[in-house]
Amino acid sequence: MKVVTLLSGGIDSSTLLYWLKRSGYKVKALTIIYGQKHSREIESAKIIAKRIDVDWTCVDLSALQPLLKSALTRTDVEIPSVPDQTAHYNTLQVTVVPNRNMILLSIAAAYAISNDFNAVAYAAHYSDRGVYPDCRWEFVHALEVALQLANDRPDFRVLAPFVRKTKADIVRLGHFLGVPYELTWSCYKGGERHCGKCSSCRERKRAFQEAGVPDPTAYDTC
Amino acid sequence: MKVVTLLSGGIDSSTLLYWLKRSGYKVKALTIIYGQKHSREIESAKIIAKRIDVDWTCVDLSALQPLLKSALTRTDVEIPSVPDQTAHYNTLQVTVVPNRNMILLSIAAAYAISNDFNAVAYAAHYSDRGVYPDCRWEFVHALEVALQLANDRPDFRVLAPFVRKTKADIVRLGHFLGVPYELTWSCYKGGERHCGKCSSCRERKRAFQEAGVPDPTAYDTC
Repeated sequence: MKVVTLLSGGIDSSTLLYWLKRSGYKVKALTIIYGQKHSREIESAKIIAKRIDVDWTCVDLSALQPLLKSALTRTDVEIPSVPDQTAHYNTLQVTVVPNRNMILLSIAAAYAISNDFNAVAYAAHYSDRGVYPDCRWEFVHALEVALQLANDRPDFRVLAPFVRKTKADIVRLGHFLGVPYELTWSCYKGGERHCGKCSSCRERKRAFQEAGVPDPTAYDTC
Repeated sequence: MKVVTLLSGGIDSSTLLYWLKRSGYKVKALTIIYGQKHSREIESAKIIAKRIDVDWTCVDLSALQPLLKSALTRTDVEIPSVPDQTAHYNTLQVTVVPNRNMILLSIAAAYAISNDFNAVAYAAHYSDRGVYPDCRWEFVHALEVALQLANDRPDFRVLAPFVRKTKADIVRLGHFLGVPYELTWSCYKGGERHCGKCSSCRERKRAFQEAGVPDPTAYDTC
């Protein structure tokens, strides 16, 4: 199977890239800039793809930014720091980008089909399903059907092998696969180092803790 | 119902815009540039939206161009002129942009949700269903399900009211609604006037003939 995988440069998509490559898939990695503030991820994506020797393409669609209401894409909405885990869910809500994964996977599918590839992949996982409906298996399935019908390609697949795994499961798998997590980027704030306070940093920290894997991240606060 | 409708500036999407507005929907029109060569359409879209007093937004995603293989987006593939109707089908095949409508409608849906709108619309029609699978009702239905699941919005709708109408039916309807067809643009070649020879011009001509509606278009050849 030949697959275009979405690569943000974070823990989940980097682990997926390693998993696909090590599993023997022919892989192209695609990074899409859609106006997110944390462009540090892009650099991480490039480095990770190079490290595992996968063809990498980046496309800048930040022109989408004015269309989308989310703290991740709007400069007039601040990404909150969260005092504790309790405030976590509400904080994540403001980071929802409407229909994000469907846009990204639709573009990935067009790129795949243009290159005679027959699948797309993304790192949807179980820990995200509460806040992000486009990380749930029922969406993965519906999207696959829609893509097959849109392109008259009944063989086309949407791979989301982590959809029933937690972020800690992913870190455990990635540790085994040798993913260089010190090169990945999660922080929503995009400073010199991970802030350690935003919801994404909190999730990163917790995943390593729960997985029992040493966290190689240099946080601003510990 | 509040709906974001895709407006290319051609006959079909202009008629849809008029139909939605005259039917009482609250409407925003969205034009997306994805690297198509015939940018004359964009100007038509703007003029048509202004004429019927609908809020119009244009977003330039021509950065997608290198990802997509199609004569409509690639400068290294020429759009053929067709000697007759017989060669029409094969000619249309090279104009297929992989997954086009899914990309455009996914973006339209994100824009809709960001504005508390609850539907998207596009002018898929019966005459296109042979060549373009993303103009078929089964795709419309699958896309609606995927969008509902992606955004946890079971009320979200994909409107494609022309999906069982021919292009001639659309022209007949638009003539009744007063669509200023002289302001619309169909030609794939994007010259000063409609070329009259490309597959899109041929379809335009034929639609007016079959509808029994006077064709206001100035063609280079008649």
